[in-house]
Amino acid sequence: MSVNLSAPVAADLLAINGVRIGVTEAGVRKANRKDLTVFLLDEGASVAGVFTQNRFCAAPVQICRDHLAAGTGIRAMVINTGNANAGTGTAGLANARATCAALAKELDLSAGQILPFSTGVIMEELPVDRIVAGMPKAIAAAKADNWATAAEGIMTTDTLPKAFSRSVSIGGKTVSITGISKGAGMIRPNMATMLGFLATDAAIAPELLQPLVKELADGSFNRVTIDGDTSTNDSFVLIATHKAGNAQITALSSAEGEQLKAALLEVAQKLAQAIVRDGEGATKFISVKVEGGKNEDECRLVAYSIAHSPLVKTAFFASDPNLGRILAAVGYAGIADLDQTKIDLYLDDVHVVVDGGRNPSYKEEDGQRVMKQQEIVVRVVLGRGDAAQTVWTCDLSHEYVTINADYRS
Amino acid sequence: MSVNLSAPVAADLLAINGVRIGVTEAGVRKANRKDLTVFLLDEGASVAGVFTQNRFCAAPVQICRDHLAAGTGIRAMVINTGNANAGTGTAGLANARATCAALAKELDLSAGQILPFSTGVIMEELPVDRIVAGMPKAIAAAKADNWATAAEGIMTTDTLPKAFSRSVSIGGKTVSITGISKGAGMIRPNMATMLGFLATDAAIAPELLQPLVKELADGSFNRVTIDGDTSTNDSFVLIATHKAGNAQITALSSAEGEQLKAALLEVAQKLAQAIVRDGEGATKFISVKVEGGKNEDECRLVAYSIAHSPLVKTAFFASDPNLGRILAAVGYAGIADLDQTKIDLYLDDVHVVVDGGRNPSYKEEDGQRVMKQQEIVVRVVLGRGDAAQTVWTCDLSHEYVTINADYRS
Repeated sequence: MSVNLSAPVAADLLAINGVRIGVTEAGVRKANRKDLTVFLLDEGASVAGVFTQNRFCAAPVQICRDHLAAGTGIRAMVINTGNANAGTGTAGLANARATCAALAKELDLSAGQILPFSTGVIMEELPVDRIVAGMPKAIAAAKADNWATAAEGIMTTDTLPKAFSRSVSIGGKTVSITGISKGAGMIRPNMATMLGFLATDAAIAPELLQPLVKELADGSFNRVTIDGDTSTNDSFVLIATHKAGNAQITALSSAEGEQLKAALLEVAQKLAQAIVRDGEGATKFISVKVEGGKNEDECRLVAYSIAHSPLVKTAFFASDPNLGRILAAVGYAGIADLDQTKIDLYLDDVHVVVDGGRNPSYKEEDGQRVMKQQEIVVRVVLGRGDAAQTVWTCDLSHEYVTINADYRS
Repeated sequence: MSVNLSAPVAADLLAINGVRIGVTEAGVRKANRKDLTVFLLDEGASVAGVFTQNRFCAAPVQICRDHLAAGTGIRAMVINTGNANAGTGTAGLANARATCAALAKELDLSAGQILPFSTGVIMEELPVDRIVAGMPKAIAAAKADNWATAAEGIMTTDTLPKAFSRSVSIGGKTVSITGISKGAGMIRPNMATMLGFLATDAAIAPELLQPLVKELADGSFNRVTIDGDTSTNDSFVLIATHKAGNAQITALSSAEGEQLKAALLEVAQKLAQAIVRDGEGATKFISVKVEGGKNEDECRLVAYSIAHSPLVKTAFFASDPNLGRILAAVGYAGIADLDQTKIDLYLDDVHVVVDGGRNPSYKEEDGQRVMKQQEIVVRVVLGRGDAAQTVWTCDLSHEYVTINADYRS
């Protein structure tokens, strides 16, 4: 199941000059699966990333942070599925380091120039030998027009690969952007989701990459939730190869900086929303917009309270306008001085609640009509100020329970 | 479905001298259902209550708070199912007041001496006429040995009525305690759950009742969760009729005060746990114990993070020892300076994780054996201090989705 999402067409995805990708079957957990992906970056590329806030973060996340902080110039990334290398203690860290060392040796680089990523089951030992054995084949397969295969290579419980491209003209030069993402459950990113990779050939001052990736994550991956479970492995990485020939962007607030940011954000949002559209068991795509808050934080609090409520999510699954459940979620979101008599609720264009009570002109059949749609906008007006925030989520279906009860078997 | 819970035997429930209860069918939402219950209290009874922290609290909750604060001596309570009178704005408040006024008239009391309670669907208008029409029959049916019927009268999606009694000898006199509760979904009480009523004939200084009910709620109803959805109507009420003949208890910290508190807490915990055992779709009863915290707050944070995780709950449903999901929930609970290398995890007697990594001597079949049980203790040791907290919850099954997708139809 997925909601208005289709697999990318390989020919629609733009190659990014300076990035080559190879994918192979390494047998990490199951046979006959593309489960090992390597990214090879030309010298001079800039890389920045944001990672999970989960305190039980996986070993590869810790290594990524170290290698990015060291600033030795990232030249390759290695991604395995089937095993998250999380909850694996000091042995897990050693395994992640061994993976980097092995790829560095193959590529004549230092281990600190490699970023490792893992996704899959937690608390199992990473099979480093099988990963290392697969590396030569993945490197040999590397090519620039390989993004569609890479999107497949990083899938776990995803039903569809997720990849988007766009180009934008900056200072008369065409800049290309391509990104891939994966994830369908354990999705409530707190910084970024496991996994998103976004690359551009734009020339941009390297020191701008870290604030830019943070801003992109906040506007995309940090606004989606499927089940409220923040993964141990969330990682979102931005690569700039600087090869588009545009005059180097030196400020995000410049006209060219804003142009690039808008184009990157569009792709990042599509990638983040694709994760929700392919959410485990999802049958509906729901945008929760909270307006009229005192600040963005409280808007987000209310939006997530609605988006995480199992009762709200099952009501969407059932197409049942049992909208009191939304009011209950607004009420327990944690705003201590919330005045319920100022709250309005809309379902798309249908005005359901006025001043905290049922709108006298609201008719059940109007709510029913909207609830049956595959795409629904829930809009809550708090009547406290001018701030607003949007969060994207999906419904909670039988299929979610089935998938997660069966995941390891 | 319910986990190790059976319906109370009417003869096992102790009458409380000074409390009479009547139940009838008022047709609030559906025909042929016991949906209206009145409690009649003798003059001199003391009543205290704690109520939902949900800011979208229901009209009857607001009226209860007002009437208890006014201190005019509560003499009766009226409880309807089928309609929560929540999200109903000013009309809802007027309807709750009208209900109190009507019962007061029947009983020759003032409206301020009545506490109203409602449970059922949110955002529908309370059918006051049908409730008022049913009152004479409920009053006529009132008798002291009617607790089992009352436990049925307050059920909504509950599959079993919930009632417990016990007696305790205090200063040579036998003191009786009986309580009832209801609730199966929208359960993550924040003060108390919808609904719990606990009565004793113990003589106790009236001013002790409010701190006592708060302490009881914190040790019972405030430790359970089914779906993390805090209801708009949670109410937990403690009644003392002072008729047992014991010397009046004047301090909770006295020997007699501690005796009474322990006996009340035992019944309150059974009532709270009964709600989890009858949780919507529950197939397992899970105690989450978090130890070694710096303080109780952070232990509770971690315990609820585990108890609310849809991934953890579906793993329990599947009897799948996918225990990395528990580590992930510990990691995102919100303790900023948590050190994952100090964390141990036990499943009953099975030591699964040591120092943040898989215990080398842990065997999958040991985890599997515990996961198959109907009652499971998850124990997390944080290694930060001496504080501990326990929370009770259930698993997340297909049945939960079915019940909540179908609830209104």
